Amino acid sequence: MVEHQLPKLRVAGSNPVSRSFHHLPLKYCMQAAVITIGDEILIGQITDTNSAFIASRLDAAGFQVNTITSIPDEHTAILKALADATSQVDLVIVTGGLGPTSDDRTKYTLSAYFERKLVRNKDVLRHISELLGRRGVAMNNLNEMQADVPEGSRILKNELGTAPGLWLEKQNIIYIFLPGVPFEMEALLTEKVIPLLADRFHPPKIVHKNIMLTGIGESSLADKLRDWEKELDPDISLAYLPSPGILKLRLSVKGDNTEILQEKIKKQTNKLKFIVPEYIYGYDEEKLEEVIGKLLYHNHKTISTAESCTGGTLASMITGIPGSSRYYKGTVVAYDNTVKINLLDIDQDILNKFGAVSQPVVEKMATGAINKFHTDYAISTSGIAGPDGGTPEKPVGTVWIAVASNLTVRAKKFVFGKNRERNIIRSAYAGMNMLRELIIEENT
Amino acid sequence: MVEHQLPKLRVAGSNPVSRSFHHLPLKYCMQAAVITIGDEILIGQITDTNSAFIASRLDAAGFQVNTITSIPDEHTAILKALADATSQVDLVIVTGGLGPTSDDRTKYTLSAYFERKLVRNKDVLRHISELLGRRGVAMNNLNEMQADVPEGSRILKNELGTAPGLWLEKQNIIYIFLPGVPFEMEALLTEKVIPLLADRFHPPKIVHKNIMLTGIGESSLADKLRDWEKELDPDISLAYLPSPGILKLRLSVKGDNTEILQEKIKKQTNKLKFIVPEYIYGYDEEKLEEVIGKLLYHNHKTISTAESCTGGTLASMITGIPGSSRYYKGTVVAYDNTVKINLLDIDQDILNKFGAVSQPVVEKMATGAINKFHTDYAISTSGIAGPDGGTPEKPVGTVWIAVASNLTVRAKKFVFGKNRERNIIRSAYAGMNMLRELIIEENT
Repeated sequence: MVEHQLPKLRVAGSNPVSRSFHHLPLKYCMQAAVITIGDEILIGQITDTNSAFIASRLDAAGFQVNTITSIPDEHTAILKALADATSQVDLVIVTGGLGPTSDDRTKYTLSAYFERKLVRNKDVLRHISELLGRRGVAMNNLNEMQADVPEGSRILKNELGTAPGLWLEKQNIIYIFLPGVPFEMEALLTEKVIPLLADRFHPPKIVHKNIMLTGIGESSLADKLRDWEKELDPDISLAYLPSPGILKLRLSVKGDNTEILQEKIKKQTNKLKFIVPEYIYGYDEEKLEEVIGKLLYHNHKTISTAESCTGGTLASMITGIPGSSRYYKGTVVAYDNTVKINLLDIDQDILNKFGAVSQPVVEKMATGAINKFHTDYAISTSGIAGPDGGTPEKPVGTVWIAVASNLTVRAKKFVFGKNRERNIIRSAYAGMNMLRELIIEENT
Repeated sequence: MVEHQLPKLRVAGSNPVSRSFHHLPLKYCMQAAVITIGDEILIGQITDTNSAFIASRLDAAGFQVNTITSIPDEHTAILKALADATSQVDLVIVTGGLGPTSDDRTKYTLSAYFERKLVRNKDVLRHISELLGRRGVAMNNLNEMQADVPEGSRILKNELGTAPGLWLEKQNIIYIFLPGVPFEMEALLTEKVIPLLADRFHPPKIVHKNIMLTGIGESSLADKLRDWEKELDPDISLAYLPSPGILKLRLSVKGDNTEILQEKIKKQTNKLKFIVPEYIYGYDEEKLEEVIGKLLYHNHKTISTAESCTGGTLASMITGIPGSSRYYKGTVVAYDNTVKINLLDIDQDILNKFGAVSQPVVEKMATGAINKFHTDYAISTSGIAGPDGGTPEKPVGTVWIAVASNLTVRAKKFVFGKNRERNIIRSAYAGMNMLRELIIEENT
């Protein structure tokens, strides 16, 4: 299929509702379908994270994913999904069903669909043997069968695993089959599939910008942005993407000239900086823990934490960033009050008088961490994560958070919800955001 | 639709490949489709976790999900998906597109599809007003519009949010529309939708059993289970569901008599206990951190941790379990060597002689934690999570883990892979599994 063939393309804007909501105008572009195979998805045993990864990479490369479908690892369902996709798209990417265990049988179905017999590929067999050898694992029959591919398939070598990627074509549609193991699929897609597709097609340009916010909900932000939204260029599309503690606002625009598109987006992000400056902590896929990491590193500062209700999640998020050992020294998780006394030098009297979930205690925890770890900054948390442990004065979701530097200590009370997991995550983000504000104040 | 109408049902077994792989025989059962709406899914900005939740709950209630489809928040795509589903299923569950912000416009499309005008529902409006009032938020236009529903919809009251669930019927198909916010959708599905469906239909019984394993990979387990698999009843289906550090083996069987089904599954799980006892840590959805929590609590024992490479993730996993404060006292995350010296009493000499990633250091960290936190047990970790910091003798992925009690301390070296996130998670699971084994040894 070449670029000027446009049999299955759509132009939007025919629906007035769509226009009035600033929806992404669908220009001529390559249409793709993503199919994930796995019974475990359809009975809800696992969440399909592969399709999100594939969709994001295709989107960034200018392809438009118009459906993601999950189907069982079953002959008829696979044949139907492949045939259905044919009527709508130019490109089909399929994951799953290529693993070594016996609940995978996709390749027999491919053999039938493409009317090509399965042949054992020597290069793939050698690769599997080498890979297992390096791991000190003996080759078994199941591994050998992974070298069987439909005759004439283009092989996409899987450096990280035993199941190869396969590229097949039928009636001007490209079908790409990738293993379901996420990191194997991700490497194959990024290093092999996307470059090959970009060589073959010349997809339109697309520019996305994410504005990352914290400390504000979807509805409140929408309210603050109502006038801005009304004036927004109709070819810019907008999405609110909330997750616990974080709100992502996505702007997208598609066209031919990247520079013009970037300029359009830049104009809008600059406007947003004036409307809601206090909530914007970063852009694109930036994590709050990366932003504070950069601030600490560039200002040659160090940090420690003292956690009660976040129970190590704050430390875990901060140390999840590669290179965090350059600015992060450690945490004390003081789940027990005796730990607060022994390891963070909190007075028993203060604990008795105010309780563990209180301003004085959380402030002492922060300054205690600075003293114990000899850091420039510290974050501390103490709260009632739930589901139990609430009282009328301090209901579940009550959290005190403090940040301290060598100059100051400030504490803030939050009242989150009833869900333990979300309370922990929201506390961690709230603490990191308080730290972000303090570092910026003290270092600019 | 009543139970004896069976227009769209399938019987499997006609495909010999399917039989030979012990696949789930498809008995007569209600077929369902799940549709998730959201541009953010199709460009890969978010992972669709809602469909996994819906699929698991439908499956447990005896409904068979035969496709999960994600489509854009776009009039034509929604109409097409609703129409497509009609030819295949008895029940369609749709999420997304009911939020307060302007990138949601599903309701206008529903109005068109069901040929019913949108009317403002007074009960819903009152609920929205009350809910916002409790949160101290003023009602805005966008909130009011959430009370607009297609005329004649059955309202499923959303206790946790402003967008109601909707139940509509057309040509003997039930369509259920739920908000996309996960916890709102989850509550509506569990508390309203599933009970209403169970009342109306009488789905077949299905019994699943998950065997939870750690310390073994998919391929090695499949090898050990080959003979067992060969002898497995053909109506029991089997799936290997790997995730970092954990392998879930799922057995499923469907039929009319729950007792017989449970007996069949029990026979097989008992066999597995003899074949791979050392790798099985639990059953069903049990987390390893729950299993060690129960062991500690029932034996009246306490635990602390001392973490280097896991950076708080071990603490975070343990404290993620409600009630963990009864047995968990705290952690020291010693990311910096001076912290190991000051807070865990590790000798500078030992650090100099063996390095931080070594048996003597990790053993001292574990006993240091026991002393500092006054606990019965401790887990410690020290390793090179990556992506940098490896050496020829200690490459990225090298992790020393120790567990200690008041009687003993034991350490073990692991060599994981190159991915930081997976190395951290696998280290945390390995440490918890070593603890599990030690507690069982010392308390039985």
